[in-house]
Amino acid sequence: MTFQRTLPPVEILSEASLEVLERGWKRIVSEIGIDFMDERAVDLFRAHGQKVEGTVVKFDPDFLLEQIAKVPDHFTWHSRNPARSIEFAPANMVFLPVNSAPFVLNGSDRHEARFEDFRTFNRLTYVTDVLDSPGCPSCDPTDVVIESRHLKLQQALYEDQDKPHFASAFDGISAADSIAMATIVAGGRDALAARPLLAGVINCNSPLRYDERMLASLIALAEAGQIVIVTPFILMGAMGPVSPAAALAQQTAETLSALALVQLVRPGCPAIMGSFVSHTDMQSGSPGFGGPESAIGLLATGQIARRYGLLWRAGGGGLTSSQVPDAQAAFEALNTVMPSMLAGANFQLHCAGWLESGLVAGYEKFVIDVEMLRILQRQFAPFEIDEASLAFDAHVEVGHGGHFFGAVHTLERFRDCFYRPEVFSTANFDRWTRYGSLDTAARAAKRWPEWLERWQAPPLDDGIRTALGEYVDRRSAEIEADL
Amino acid sequence: MTFQRTLPPVEILSEASLEVLERGWKRIVSEIGIDFMDERAVDLFRAHGQKVEGTVVKFDPDFLLEQIAKVPDHFTWHSRNPARSIEFAPANMVFLPVNSAPFVLNGSDRHEARFEDFRTFNRLTYVTDVLDSPGCPSCDPTDVVIESRHLKLQQALYEDQDKPHFASAFDGISAADSIAMATIVAGGRDALAARPLLAGVINCNSPLRYDERMLASLIALAEAGQIVIVTPFILMGAMGPVSPAAALAQQTAETLSALALVQLVRPGCPAIMGSFVSHTDMQSGSPGFGGPESAIGLLATGQIARRYGLLWRAGGGGLTSSQVPDAQAAFEALNTVMPSMLAGANFQLHCAGWLESGLVAGYEKFVIDVEMLRILQRQFAPFEIDEASLAFDAHVEVGHGGHFFGAVHTLERFRDCFYRPEVFSTANFDRWTRYGSLDTAARAAKRWPEWLERWQAPPLDDGIRTALGEYVDRRSAEIEADL
Repeated sequence: MTFQRTLPPVEILSEASLEVLERGWKRIVSEIGIDFMDERAVDLFRAHGQKVEGTVVKFDPDFLLEQIAKVPDHFTWHSRNPARSIEFAPANMVFLPVNSAPFVLNGSDRHEARFEDFRTFNRLTYVTDVLDSPGCPSCDPTDVVIESRHLKLQQALYEDQDKPHFASAFDGISAADSIAMATIVAGGRDALAARPLLAGVINCNSPLRYDERMLASLIALAEAGQIVIVTPFILMGAMGPVSPAAALAQQTAETLSALALVQLVRPGCPAIMGSFVSHTDMQSGSPGFGGPESAIGLLATGQIARRYGLLWRAGGGGLTSSQVPDAQAAFEALNTVMPSMLAGANFQLHCAGWLESGLVAGYEKFVIDVEMLRILQRQFAPFEIDEASLAFDAHVEVGHGGHFFGAVHTLERFRDCFYRPEVFSTANFDRWTRYGSLDTAARAAKRWPEWLERWQAPPLDDGIRTALGEYVDRRSAEIEADL
Repeated sequence: MTFQRTLPPVEILSEASLEVLERGWKRIVSEIGIDFMDERAVDLFRAHGQKVEGTVVKFDPDFLLEQIAKVPDHFTWHSRNPARSIEFAPANMVFLPVNSAPFVLNGSDRHEARFEDFRTFNRLTYVTDVLDSPGCPSCDPTDVVIESRHLKLQQALYEDQDKPHFASAFDGISAADSIAMATIVAGGRDALAARPLLAGVINCNSPLRYDERMLASLIALAEAGQIVIVTPFILMGAMGPVSPAAALAQQTAETLSALALVQLVRPGCPAIMGSFVSHTDMQSGSPGFGGPESAIGLLATGQIARRYGLLWRAGGGGLTSSQVPDAQAAFEALNTVMPSMLAGANFQLHCAGWLESGLVAGYEKFVIDVEMLRILQRQFAPFEIDEASLAFDAHVEVGHGGHFFGAVHTLERFRDCFYRPEVFSTANFDRWTRYGSLDTAARAAKRWPEWLERWQAPPLDDGIRTALGEYVDRRSAEIEADL
C-alpha cells in the first residue's frame, strides 16, 4: 500500500515570499522564455498563441496556469499485479532506489555497472517493503551494447519483478520501445493509456532548455498517456544562480512550461512536477548534497507545488557526495530524505543505494538506506494516545523505582513494541568486539545477500513473456543491424 | 548569540490526545504518587497540603499546575563574560556537547576518561561557535580521586573557558561546592542568585522516584537561584512501560512534581522541564537511540511543555548506540537532533561527541556532530525571498543552456553563498583516492587537533583565580582527610 503522510507538511515560505517567487518565474517565462528544441513542441505552443522566437517560447504565464490546471492530482501507476500498483495522491509518498549510476560499489570493489548488478538491485528492490518501484535503470550496465540496452533492461524488469517501473526515456526510440513493450503487457494501447504501467523522468537541460531527445521522449510518453515526471536538475552555481530563491523561480519556470506541453499533447495526462536543487562546491566545482540549501529548497518546493495543485517529486532522498557508506553518507542521506518527507514530497527517487553524487550504486548503502526508510516510515506514522496506551496498570504494578522488564504489559508486547533494526546495532562494546568490531557498512555487507535469497521471480503470463521476448529480439536485431 | 528558531514547531498530537495524556499524568501523581526520598522535600509538600505516605507524595494535580505557573519562560544563564551568556526563551535553542561519558574514543584507542580528555573537550567546546556551554563533565576522568573530583573539574572550567557551565550536581556536597565557587566568581550569594552562573541536571530515578542525592542537589541549586533542569531518563521497557504514550504521561508526572518542589524552595527559580525518552532493545536489554519512538517522543514532549508554559530540554541530540563514528552514528545523531529542533527544544545536551549509548565521548564524533549542528543551524535559519534574491539579471546574462560559473552574480558571491563543510567531502573518486581514501571519521581525526590549536585561555580576574584555587585546595584537603 502506498505510504500516506498524516503530519501536515512543514512550510517555510511566507505568503509574501511566495508572491515574489511567483513574479520571478512569470518574468522568466515571459521575458527570457524557455528553449524547446523540438519542432512539434514549438508548433504546439505557437498554435496555442504563445510567442515563438526560433526555438525559444515566450509564455503568457496565465496560459501556463490554465494548462497545468489540467494535471490530475490523483492517479494510479499500475502494475500487472494490482497489489503492487502505486496510488499517487496529495498525501501519498512513493520511494524508489538509486537510478542511473554508471558504477557499483560492493565492499571495496568499485566497478563499472554490469547487467548482473542491474538485476540484483531490481531484485533487492522487489523484496524490500519500503521501496515501491525499481525505476529504471538502478545502475546502467556497460556490458550490454548501449543502442539496444533499453530493450534488455525493460525485459528483465518484467521478468524479475512486478512493481511498476520506469520507461527507458532518454530519447524517442527508447521511450517508444518501452511503450510498445508495456502495450504488450497491458493488452493494447488504449488499455495502457487507461491504466498506465510506465512513468518516465524528463530532465530539463537547465537553465531554461529542453533538448530534442528529452522532448521526443516527453511527447511519446504523453501521447501514450503514461506518467511524465518533469525534472530540472539545478546545481546552483552551475545550472542556476547561487541563490536558492533564484533556483526555485527557475525550477518553477522550467517545470510549469514542460508540464503545459504534456497537457497540450494529451489533456489530463498524469504528470508530476520534479525538483532537484542542490549546491555546487564552489572551490572544486563538484556537486554537493544534503546541505542546508537543498533542505530549504525542498521545503519551499513543496509549498510551490501545492500552490499550483501539483503532485511533486523531491529530487531525491538518500543523496550524498560521500565516496563510501560512512558517517557523511548517512547524514546527507537522512538530510535529504527527512526534509523531503517533512515537505510532503509525493515521489522520491534515489532513496536507497546512492553514493558519490550519483555515480555509484552501493550495495551496503542500499541496506543502510532501507533501514533509514523503515525507521522514517514508522516515525511519520500517525500517533494517537488513548487510555489503553497509557498503561496505567503497568505503573501500578511496578510502582516507585522498579523496572518494567517483567511487567505484564511489557511481556505481552515486547516482541513488536519498538522498531527492530536490521543493521543498526545496540550491542555493548564487549559483545560488539567479540563479533568482529564490524561497523555499520561491514554489517550491511552481510545483509543484502541474505535479502537476495528471499527473491523469487513473480508470475508472468507465458504469452506475454513470449511476446516481450520476440519484441526484444526483433528490435535488438533491427537496431544492431544499423550500427 | 543564542540560536533562535523561526520555523513554528512541528506538532503531532491532536488536542484529544493531549487531553488523554493530561488525564494520564494527573492519575499517576494523585493515585500512585511520586517518591521523594528527602525529608525536606516531603515536609514542604505536606506543609502545602499534599498527601504524604512515608516518602510518597500524592498530589492534587491543580496544586502542581499552580506551582509550575511560577517557572519563568525567559531567563539568562550568565557568564562572567557577558558575550557568552545564554538567553533562554520560548523560541531559543541551546546546544551542549556530550556529558558524563566514562570512556573516550580517539581513533581506535578506547580508554577510561582522563583529566586531560575532560579539558580537551572543554577547550574544543569553547572554540566551537555552535556549542553554547560545555556542561560538566564532558567525560568523567577516573585519574582524579572521585570524592574531590568535582572541585578540580569546576576549577578547570573557569580557567579553560568562559562559556556558562553546569554545577557538579550529583549530590548535595558537589552542588554546594559548585555554588560556593560560583559565589566567588559572582561576587556574593545575592549577586549569584540575581545572575545565575550555574545550571544543574537533576535526574529522576524513574519510575516515579527522586533519591536523596538528587534531591539534596535540587534543593541546593534552587536555594541559590540557579537553573534547575529536571530530567527523567526513561528507557521504555526498563524505566517506563513499552508505550510512548505511557512514557510521556510518566515523564510529565515526574517533571511537574519536581519542578513544583523547585518553586516551593524558591518561587520563580529558573527551571527547565527535561525529557529523555528512548527505547530498550528488547532482545538484549540494551538502550537504543535515534529510533522512531524517540523522535515521536520528542515531538510530543514539545507540545506538552508548551501546554504548561515551560521551557524544555530534549534529552539529547547527537545520541547513538553505535560503537564507532560510522553511518549508524551519523543517522541516529541526526535523527535525534533534527526531531529536537523540529519540536522546538530549548535545550539539547549531548549534541557533539556522544557514542556507544553515552558510555563514550569520541573526538571524531565530536567533529562530525559539529558539522551537523552547523548545517542544521543554517538550515533552520529564516528564509525570505526578495527581488534581489531572484537574480533575474543572472538569468538574462546566462540565457538558455549555459552555465553560471562565470556569471557576475556568481563571481560576487561564490565564497560564502553556500555552507562550506569542514569534514564532509565532495571530492571526486580520483582526488579522494589520491588523498588516501579517508572516510569521514578519518578526516575528522585530523580536524580536532587543528581546532585545539585555536584555543587560548580566556581572561580570569587574578583575585578570583586565587580565591577559587584556595577554595579548591582547602575543600580538597578537608574531603581527602575524611577518606
